[in-house]
Amino acid sequence: MKNVLAKESACWIWYPGDWEIWQHEQISIRRKMRGVIFPAFWRLDRHYSSVVFSYTYELEQDEEVTITADGHFSVYFDGRDNERYNQTKMMLPRGKHELMVAVYNDIKVPALFIEGAHIKTNESWKVSCYDKQWHCAGSWEEMLNDPTVPPSEYRLATIPKLPVNIEKKEDGWMVDFGRETFGYLQLNGISGRSGLRIYYGESREEADDREHCVQLDRLEADSFQADTFTLPETRAFRYVQIVPDSADFQLESISMLYEYLPVDYRGSFQSSNQRLNDIWETSLYTFHLNTREFFFDGIKRDRWVWSGDAYQSFLMNYYSFFNLDVAKRTLIALRGKDPVVAHMNTILDYSLYWFSGIYDYYIYTGDAAFVQSQYEKMVSLMDFCLGRRNGEGMMEGIEEDWVFVDWADIDNRGEVSTVQVLLCRSLETMALVAELVGDTERKPVYQDLAKELRAKIMDIFWDHEQGGLVHSRFQGILNSKVTKYPNMFALMYGYLDQEQVESVKRKVMLNPEVQGIKTPYMRFYELAALCEVGEHQYVLEEMLDYWGGMLDLGATSFWEEFDPKQTGHEHYEMYGMPYGKSLCHAWGASPIYLIGKYFLGVKPLSPGYETYMVEPKLGRLEWLKGSVPVGPGEVEINMDTEKICVRATHGKGVLKYKKDGKSFEASIPCDGSWIEVYTSIELKQ
Amino acid sequence: MKNVLAKESACWIWYPGDWEIWQHEQISIRRKMRGVIFPAFWRLDRHYSSVVFSYTYELEQDEEVTITADGHFSVYFDGRDNERYNQTKMMLPRGKHELMVAVYNDIKVPALFIEGAHIKTNESWKVSCYDKQWHCAGSWEEMLNDPTVPPSEYRLATIPKLPVNIEKKEDGWMVDFGRETFGYLQLNGISGRSGLRIYYGESREEADDREHCVQLDRLEADSFQADTFTLPETRAFRYVQIVPDSADFQLESISMLYEYLPVDYRGSFQSSNQRLNDIWETSLYTFHLNTREFFFDGIKRDRWVWSGDAYQSFLMNYYSFFNLDVAKRTLIALRGKDPVVAHMNTILDYSLYWFSGIYDYYIYTGDAAFVQSQYEKMVSLMDFCLGRRNGEGMMEGIEEDWVFVDWADIDNRGEVSTVQVLLCRSLETMALVAELVGDTERKPVYQDLAKELRAKIMDIFWDHEQGGLVHSRFQGILNSKVTKYPNMFALMYGYLDQEQVESVKRKVMLNPEVQGIKTPYMRFYELAALCEVGEHQYVLEEMLDYWGGMLDLGATSFWEEFDPKQTGHEHYEMYGMPYGKSLCHAWGASPIYLIGKYFLGVKPLSPGYETYMVEPKLGRLEWLKGSVPVGPGEVEINMDTEKICVRATHGKGVLKYKKDGKSFEASIPCDGSWIEVYTSIELKQ
Repeated sequence: MKNVLAKESACWIWYPGDWEIWQHEQISIRRKMRGVIFPAFWRLDRHYSSVVFSYTYELEQDEEVTITADGHFSVYFDGRDNERYNQTKMMLPRGKHELMVAVYNDIKVPALFIEGAHIKTNESWKVSCYDKQWHCAGSWEEMLNDPTVPPSEYRLATIPKLPVNIEKKEDGWMVDFGRETFGYLQLNGISGRSGLRIYYGESREEADDREHCVQLDRLEADSFQADTFTLPETRAFRYVQIVPDSADFQLESISMLYEYLPVDYRGSFQSSNQRLNDIWETSLYTFHLNTREFFFDGIKRDRWVWSGDAYQSFLMNYYSFFNLDVAKRTLIALRGKDPVVAHMNTILDYSLYWFSGIYDYYIYTGDAAFVQSQYEKMVSLMDFCLGRRNGEGMMEGIEEDWVFVDWADIDNRGEVSTVQVLLCRSLETMALVAELVGDTERKPVYQDLAKELRAKIMDIFWDHEQGGLVHSRFQGILNSKVTKYPNMFALMYGYLDQEQVESVKRKVMLNPEVQGIKTPYMRFYELAALCEVGEHQYVLEEMLDYWGGMLDLGATSFWEEFDPKQTGHEHYEMYGMPYGKSLCHAWGASPIYLIGKYFLGVKPLSPGYETYMVEPKLGRLEWLKGSVPVGPGEVEINMDTEKICVRATHGKGVLKYKKDGKSFEASIPCDGSWIEVYTSIELKQ
Repeated sequence: MKNVLAKESACWIWYPGDWEIWQHEQISIRRKMRGVIFPAFWRLDRHYSSVVFSYTYELEQDEEVTITADGHFSVYFDGRDNERYNQTKMMLPRGKHELMVAVYNDIKVPALFIEGAHIKTNESWKVSCYDKQWHCAGSWEEMLNDPTVPPSEYRLATIPKLPVNIEKKEDGWMVDFGRETFGYLQLNGISGRSGLRIYYGESREEADDREHCVQLDRLEADSFQADTFTLPETRAFRYVQIVPDSADFQLESISMLYEYLPVDYRGSFQSSNQRLNDIWETSLYTFHLNTREFFFDGIKRDRWVWSGDAYQSFLMNYYSFFNLDVAKRTLIALRGKDPVVAHMNTILDYSLYWFSGIYDYYIYTGDAAFVQSQYEKMVSLMDFCLGRRNGEGMMEGIEEDWVFVDWADIDNRGEVSTVQVLLCRSLETMALVAELVGDTERKPVYQDLAKELRAKIMDIFWDHEQGGLVHSRFQGILNSKVTKYPNMFALMYGYLDQEQVESVKRKVMLNPEVQGIKTPYMRFYELAALCEVGEHQYVLEEMLDYWGGMLDLGATSFWEEFDPKQTGHEHYEMYGMPYGKSLCHAWGASPIYLIGKYFLGVKPLSPGYETYMVEPKLGRLEWLKGSVPVGPGEVEINMDTEKICVRATHGKGVLKYKKDGKSFEASIPCDGSWIEVYTSIELKQ
């Protein structure tokens, strides 16, 4: 018999955001450059070491509770702070009392777990860092609910994996794990005493290049206490070269512990084109490797959390794992703490992507509580951004700001139009969340600012002759070069009228005279924008060419940058390093998003997929099928040139399709039963 | 031969303020209530874990340096951050280079020590927490200059002390150390196996009261690995009761390690009145016990850094140790980091005392560099304060603000006049430091605000009939009760004209109808104000009565509160606890300040004692003599009813004295030679 008065179960609680911020601090120094630390080059914020939890209860009988804290703790009641207790088992007095628990931990996150018949720690407890403000406690009920494992002990999962090939070399071994992977190398059946040098490579060339490979380990002979040794730190690699100092060192076998975040593979895709299916699978694998404590940029380098990169990962996630925990962790970690004195990751545009990440999070998940919890930090970041506008009301890089936009030959001095488009979207996000929290004072301010800025963007940057937005204005003088960046964002955010959309499509996006994009990072938006204007067939060909091009070169995960015109070693070089390029970069996985949103065609119309549209497109495929998570449910789609079958288990979906040149819509029931419509699409050849 | 190109010597460097802030975090949780932690109840700020140091050098030859870091480090040159090094010995390339060193330490303060023939870490190095801002590195050249002892290993000094009496009791021992002390209890020549209970007392009664003493230790039998055991944590006590669980536990001796901050005893005082001399000595001992990593409020309780308490310690320090390091550490620790979201120590008036502490620091030391380094944090704290003014431009407690003023029966709701006086002084401090840093924009703003507020205080709170400032105004209605608080601050800060001064003296300060003050905390200002208006004889009598009253009760250090009307156990009670009162409280030591400033009569007229006044007063003493530090030098005074002798070793001092009812001045040479003036003062009996 369950006691109806009792909450479901206890879980660990902490100051909201602090576990995430502490985790982020820890992971941000795991990048190493040939064995030497390379910490993230932005301010790393920290958890509060001293916090106090509060919970007001009413008990009919005295109740024994068990108290576990990660840190030193003291309990007191009803503000009588001179009478303090710190026993693990404690009898709570009956009646109505305010229970207070101070917890201190300067090394790990102070966290609390209390369990009795009725009294159980959960997110309804309040917590303060003694700054006179109280918040709902942070928690992760599903995962961090074991009193013997405090939040600071949380680790990703591991599973042993074996290499596909071990090659004996003159002075060691070259090991091939068959594809890009991540985790702890394991040496088994060690005999002989020797120091070891270990060289890792995402490519065989890199593992083979002892002088230049990015990751290496150096082990002293006395490292090996047992006959099996697991390296203490994770590395990203496909190949490993192991070189003992002494020839009598022998190994029975080599393996690894693959480390990963357990996720549900909720998005799926298959089509008539095997190359596209391979691209989907490799994208998903690339994305999963980078989906960890947070959304990383790349697993070899930088192993950091970058806002612009994460913004794309959020979107890919909605079409694959729909894992909200990692998304929330990432948003929290990126934002860090106040005061804001520099841009996120030091990059102006990266502050702005964070707002768009909040916008999308709300639209895709409907989780108002989380975005509301971020509102104060949204306001202070926006205050910082608005404080850095110039006299024209536009943002530009000042002092040491890095205005990134893309790795490309572009001039980002002065007022960059892309930045203003992103700021406009950020202001819309502020207005949206101001509405959710009931901030009736700020909401119209943000709305007006967004409206004014949008008008100003069109007024200043729209070039009638060239039919698109120009790149920037510097010291009052327009840089009349049209680039794809501002145009594709303006298009996606709905800032263009129908005529402008047509113009941008023809004169900018499909215009070979306009500077091409060579990072998967910006190809993400480029191809999304082209899908928005119905260029699915073009996008399909681009995907097959571009991502297929990496597969042709043997890629087992997608890269940070790919220029089909490069050859040989050029593909590994970046940042002046022979193997500087990351060969497993989250932003390389964008086909997940492109296929899910534009080929399977699923997108939310109202927050949390309460209503949504399904508008599948074949491009030039013969058939496709797959599933997309829609909040707590799924949509399954099966389409060929004759018909479309759809079923769903959540929300009010509408299937949108064309037949005989006309548009039709059909409601999708949410009980999981299939609907089927006949389309008779002609395959263009 | 000293190489003239080489800097004097290397020292440890860190992010400015972070070592102090880390120390403050550590000490703020050392208070225990009967063995249970009682952390400070305000936000504890933290050090940055990830920082980067920068130094641009020019070397004619390659130079080998030794690199020691407290934390993980990596070295790179000229922004080439992909080429990193972490060897302890390293050859720096000749030529002009920017040397960068990243240091990470999440547990202790990241710190760096580099030493070569020419290249040495010192405060001229720059450091950043990667927020795009660079600061001069923090350091403590005189003390933290040993590469084998990182700043986080800094400890106060200790010296063994023996008890004056050990009494065998039925089930243990009662140990008397003769006077109030602080440190680690030591048990020597342990035999027999037993757990121990240890009860500490500032009074014998407290150590004897196992149920209610504030401090205790509980040791398990297996704690004692050797035959001598030093308790791991410091306690404040005079008496210790040691009770073994088992009767066969024996000790050869009991001792303690007295822990203290090494300071110079620069201020001295002796007079014809032995009771006053005892008061001076006990004050000095009380003050030294509370002068530690920072200026503490009390050594038993709270062992915390409180701004209002520290403000008085700063002033006592200028007349005793003149230890600028502990003053700077305290100012830094109190201020912590941004953002400011609550008042310092949660108390409105305590935010304001911090500004006055800066003011006095500059006046007494002339150390412009330090106050300049605090300017940014002064601005953000003042922004917070100004943001909390009401529509009348005055500060009042809002939301959860604690408006303290004093432990007394006073109503601090609404606009408290004392608070406005303190705010006015704070604004004057802002204007002073704005001038020092050349902030010509903000300086006149602060000046005008101060001027307006001063006029408003007089306009609203001055009561012509009662002849003083009334206590407060709440919801538009004056609380016409006159209290000493606003009047004594207004008097000391020079906000009253001569007529008002006379009125305040007669109708408020010396008026027995006006509510008396019973904390040494506010007696500090009360007696200082009375000295300002020439009531030295009255003040002398008060000192002899009040502080002498504690000595009569056997005090070996001065108390947090003393009410001569109380008897017996009442003297130990406070905060609802039988032994809640601190019997060694820094604010109990104010005779140091009163005697130094008003009897020895030394006060700076311009920053750092470049010019100063010496105006010794006997009160009704037959003679007095003593010394006061004046920056790098000293003033020595020797006075009796016939003559005054003065000599000094710094600055331009002026001796001010009266003879035959007329005022005279004499210049004091700074070469240490005596000057002598004859006064023929009549002793009033």
